[in-house]
Amino acid sequence: MKALVLERQHELAIRDIDLPGEMGPDDVRIRLHTVGVCGSDVHYYTHGRIGPFVVDKPMVLGHEAAGTVEAVGAGVSALKVGDRVCMEPGVPDSGSRASRLGMYNVDPSVRFWATPPVHGVLTSTVVHPAAFTFRLPDNVSFAEGAMVEPFAVGMQAATKARIAPGDTAVVVGAGPIGIMVALAALAGGCARVVIADLARPKLDIAARYQGVIPVDVSKEDLAARVSALTDGWGADIVFECSGSPRAWEGLIALLRPSGVIVAVGLPLAPVPLDVALLTTKEIRIESVFRYAHQYDRAIALMASGRVDLKPLISATFPFEDSIAAFDRAVEGRPDDVKIQIRMDAA
Amino acid sequence: MKALVLERQHELAIRDIDLPGEMGPDDVRIRLHTVGVCGSDVHYYTHGRIGPFVVDKPMVLGHEAAGTVEAVGAGVSALKVGDRVCMEPGVPDSGSRASRLGMYNVDPSVRFWATPPVHGVLTSTVVHPAAFTFRLPDNVSFAEGAMVEPFAVGMQAATKARIAPGDTAVVVGAGPIGIMVALAALAGGCARVVIADLARPKLDIAARYQGVIPVDVSKEDLAARVSALTDGWGADIVFECSGSPRAWEGLIALLRPSGVIVAVGLPLAPVPLDVALLTTKEIRIESVFRYAHQYDRAIALMASGRVDLKPLISATFPFEDSIAAFDRAVEGRPDDVKIQIRMDAA
Amino acid sequence: MKALVLERQHELAIRDIDLPGEMGPDDVRIRLHTVGVCGSDVHYYTHGRIGPFVVDKPMVLGHEAAGTVEAVGAGVSALKVGDRVCMEPGVPDSGSRASRLGMYNVDPSVRFWATPPVHGVLTSTVVHPAAFTFRLPDNVSFAEGAMVEPFAVGMQAATKARIAPGDTAVVVGAGPIGIMVALAALAGGCARVVIADLARPKLDIAARYQGVIPVDVSKEDLAARVSALTDGWGADIVFECSGSPRAWEGLIALLRPSGVIVAVGLPLAPVPLDVALLTTKEIRIESVFRYAHQYDRAIALMASGRVDLKPLISATFPFEDSIAAFDRAVEGRPDDVKIQIRMDAA
Amino acid sequence: MKALVLERQHELAIRDIDLPGEMGPDDVRIRLHTVGVCGSDVHYYTHGRIGPFVVDKPMVLGHEAAGTVEAVGAGVSALKVGDRVCMEPGVPDSGSRASRLGMYNVDPSVRFWATPPVHGVLTSTVVHPAAFTFRLPDNVSFAEGAMVEPFAVGMQAATKARIAPGDTAVVVGAGPIGIMVALAALAGGCARVVIADLARPKLDIAARYQGVIPVDVSKEDLAARVSALTDGWGADIVFECSGSPRAWEGLIALLRPSGVIVAVGLPLAPVPLDVALLTTKEIRIESVFRYAHQYDRAIALMASGRVDLKPLISATFPFEDSIAAFDRAVEGRPDDVKIQIRMDAA
Repeated sequence: MKALVLERQHELAIRDIDLPGEMGPDDVRIRLHTVGVCGSDVHYYTHGRIGPFVVDKPMVLGHEAAGTVEAVGAGVSALKVGDRVCMEPGVPDSGSRASRLGMYNVDPSVRFWATPPVHGVLTSTVVHPAAFTFRLPDNVSFAEGAMVEPFAVGMQAATKARIAPGDTAVVVGAGPIGIMVALAALAGGCARVVIADLARPKLDIAARYQGVIPVDVSKEDLAARVSALTDGWGADIVFECSGSPRAWEGLIALLRPSGVIVAVGLPLAPVPLDVALLTTKEIRIESVFRYAHQYDRAIALMASGRVDLKPLISATFPFEDSIAAFDRAVEGRPDDVKIQIRMDAA
Repeated sequence: MKALVLERQHELAIRDIDLPGEMGPDDVRIRLHTVGVCGSDVHYYTHGRIGPFVVDKPMVLGHEAAGTVEAVGAGVSALKVGDRVCMEPGVPDSGSRASRLGMYNVDPSVRFWATPPVHGVLTSTVVHPAAFTFRLPDNVSFAEGAMVEPFAVGMQAATKARIAPGDTAVVVGAGPIGIMVALAALAGGCARVVIADLARPKLDIAARYQGVIPVDVSKEDLAARVSALTDGWGADIVFECSGSPRAWEGLIALLRPSGVIVAVGLPLAPVPLDVALLTTKEIRIESVFRYAHQYDRAIALMASGRVDLKPLISATFPFEDSIAAFDRAVEGRPDDVKIQIRMDAA
Repeated sequence: MKALVLERQHELAIRDIDLPGEMGPDDVRIRLHTVGVCGSDVHYYTHGRIGPFVVDKPMVLGHEAAGTVEAVGAGVSALKVGDRVCMEPGVPDSGSRASRLGMYNVDPSVRFWATPPVHGVLTSTVVHPAAFTFRLPDNVSFAEGAMVEPFAVGMQAATKARIAPGDTAVVVGAGPIGIMVALAALAGGCARVVIADLARPKLDIAARYQGVIPVDVSKEDLAARVSALTDGWGADIVFECSGSPRAWEGLIALLRPSGVIVAVGLPLAPVPLDVALLTTKEIRIESVFRYAHQYDRAIALMASGRVDLKPLISATFPFEDSIAAFDRAVEGRPDDVKIQIRMDAA
Repeated sequence: MKALVLERQHELAIRDIDLPGEMGPDDVRIRLHTVGVCGSDVHYYTHGRIGPFVVDKPMVLGHEAAGTVEAVGAGVSALKVGDRVCMEPGVPDSGSRASRLGMYNVDPSVRFWATPPVHGVLTSTVVHPAAFTFRLPDNVSFAEGAMVEPFAVGMQAATKARIAPGDTAVVVGAGPIGIMVALAALAGGCARVVIADLARPKLDIAARYQGVIPVDVSKEDLAARVSALTDGWGADIVFECSGSPRAWEGLIALLRPSGVIVAVGLPLAPVPLDVALLTTKEIRIESVFRYAHQYDRAIALMASGRVDLKPLISATFPFEDSIAAFDRAVEGRPDDVKIQIRMDAA
């Protein structure tokens, strides 16, 4: 099968590669239609590794995917050939203790697309468990379907925050995930979300959404703005999406007593946590690892029109130009949020 | 002071009446601008009582109110003369056990406007604790401010439901409160809200909102529709807003395992609860009594544009026509949701 | 295999019967040591059915069981031959939506021992999934291991109640399940549990436990006692374990504002629920169906000495006298809580 | 009035001092009977300050107190002369936003005994709001009443943890607060609490309680022990009570996926938090500032016998020897948990 293969750090190739294709009774085979480029795909390309995960043999990239079911296993009843679908890229051990408790995302044995040694889906077809494959309603396009994966991270963050209707949230960091979190927080009950960054163009994109208040921290004091917006009380929730240790220093000051910090961004090193200050306000910290049970909820929000992710798709490349797509992602244009690749002519 | 006085059952008069006007240090005096007509106001007019609350002497009606601060007590710092505000009509004993625990709405000693023996606010001015008076942002009109009270009931219901982002809810009963609950549920995180009633016109009004799915139960089976929408799984939440004992019989069937019923409507008699069936699905029931700590949240949702209540204002009468306003409310036109009275020329 | 077989209503026999014995890779085979007699076993004996579950062919009884692992499947690593264990009698479909969400107890496809058409375990050995088989610590006897099943119902109730440390609870109904719930509520954080019944002997047994306050409702007003104990505030939690529709009428009056009713007992007919009264106090209702993820927690509480169920074992019969054991259970002596059967000589 | 006065750092005196004694209508006057010596009292003695709170004029010490009501204000109905009581030392502004939301402990305007410039209660009588004064049942002694204050910190920690019945917890640090937290965690639903410290004597005292598992970290690897106890799964909760930045480094490794850290101890400097590791397990962090609404719950647990704090009272001094009591506390004998002072002969 033809696929976009990361041969090693810095080297991509579109070439044939042998991929597993055996179907079990609970699996479906999906012809890929659209695959988004994620920061982790790009990071494997530029660095050859993410933490302990090292690309030490050729690996197909891509895990944000939508397509069409073209075969179903004997035990599958919820899906049929021709269904338009999107897929969760991580498949846990369904018998693990974490899975049985309903939190399969923290099962250490999860196998995740485009995470060594597991291949991704920038290729023609993939075999996948039906239980992790979700039908798209007619009014949700393949392109939107391929956005469900990053949006599910936002949904997990919004769920962990335990938003009360009408809450005020701050999102620190207006990268793709920060924007997804902001939209999920609004969909999940926030009245307004202050989104803060140094990068103006993405703030402008986020600001097109109702309820989003952009703050350019190169020009404005975030804490002062939040205080003014909340009559000095503070925000109910801060979603930390920048991964910057420096950002962590100011988070507590943004919050009301008994507020919550949701850690989404991953700092490279431990951050300093002022426990005494945390305690004075009885702040809670939640953390987010991917998502569990969010796909159907994310799709429902998109289908009802409450969440519109289409404006976040900055460019779409045909599969034969997928290396160019990656090079554009590496370039990191300030107003690029999501780059996608169309597989349907592959 | 001139006021709309319910002299006794069936008899309203616009006349002068002595009303308390003494200000304490923590009070403000508000000049009324807009007052909504609530079902309870109408019920006192038509029945002379609601349960144990009997109108046995003349009482001013009205409790959904917005206006302008015209005097502030010496201890008030959060409000100033000229502030546009809306007010919570119920004032609890701040020292009661319930209040101290943060749930002042269930404090039995609460004094509530237009509930005998407490006068309402269909008059020129009222003295009220600053702590229960909320500033309106510039982009929230007086008319919208007077809608905060009924919307706060919806907010309380949405809060009690503990909505997870992307939930599917059913609202049974498309009266004014049912519509408020539907909008609060959507604002509070639901992807979609099925609203069910026999009355077509109000369903049509509700259906103008994104995410609302109207079901005319005179023509369509509600359980079948919910099942189809949720792939046979069931709704996450049912808000019972009809107050109909008959409606209660079918609620459990609408729900997924571990779903929740939120009781908002007040049946006149006990309803039959099938505990064995409830148990099979481990259903939870929550109940709602007015609201606590919802005004600022409701106003934030309106100010950010996430909730628009203006389309629910069906007609506005000047104060001198307020008896006509009540007679129209008594009439109960099928497409009337909320009737308001302008006090500003009073 | 020799087993206690319910041939039909009213007719028990100890005889040989063919039982499934095939082991899968994730199964273990357990030699039974102790099996408790549950009210449902007795009800099948006396009535031949429970609701829709009809004994229309011979069925082995018994589902409260402990024993010793005597064979393990190839995929089993957590258990080994010789382990002393107890078992969950209900095995769900691990791929069902409910199971994947972590609430396998409400999976409608669960197969439960001694529930037609599934055989129970009053026999020599049984093959069971390792995932539903739990090792007993050295200081937890087989007899206690066979008590885990009914205690797990109490644990589920205590978990659903969301007890805050120091809560005051009322248990209505001092049958075996009522007592289990009372002990689980105390272990789960209650400071004290008022247990109410008309039957004096079981109240006396319950009263031996620290923190249990027995109320004989034939002689004392329960609401008055609860009010006195709580300075007029009311209990935080009421566990309804009697299944009596009459009992439901007085539950709300026992509770503080924002208190919770946990429905454990199963009334034969719908109960009248005063929604208006429920609402005035913003009462919550939770319901309990068996249990999920409680076995390891229950065993930990027993192993640490925080819960001692041994005093609740009223009599133990050898397997050859198991019909006599059932006849004693049918007799319903007022001070019998749990009757067990020793299988180890079977 | 005679009192124990901290004149300045290192200098205590028993002498007469003018103290406020005016009673409002909602106050009571209490004759002190027993006052415990808290680490913060000792710290003011040895350091003259705690963070921003500086002893810059003479201040009476002591805030863990019990006594007898000897006068009640006109508005007080819940207490009467002669009642044996204990008191919350912190009195918030009841009209503050935090207080109205039910979390008065995080109200920044709280006035707390023996925290500059507010005097403590090592004296004969004190005037205090009835709302923060709690009647002791007959079977709770004054000495135990004076233990409610530190135990309430443990209760707050146990409440924030949201213990599920049967949880396994680890308490890091076996000082007085660590032991209080361990006992509150057990009372609040834990099956067992591992308590870890380098100091053997206090571990031995803690180990006398059922369910407490002491781990001397100078001799044993804590993570290995927790892993063994939980079949490799990890603890549900870690209560950090040491205040040691070093301790924070190992906390995440002790926890199961989705476990919780409750921050109780106050490190002097920010601690390093490994957000990436936190996230991998989706760990939650809660923090605790004193307590709110815990006194009645703590007293109920003591009255029912579920919590026995008497073994933690290491020594009792008469008031005239209270300087000796402080010097003994400064000495910090390894097996001293709580030192109390009897005021009744003062």
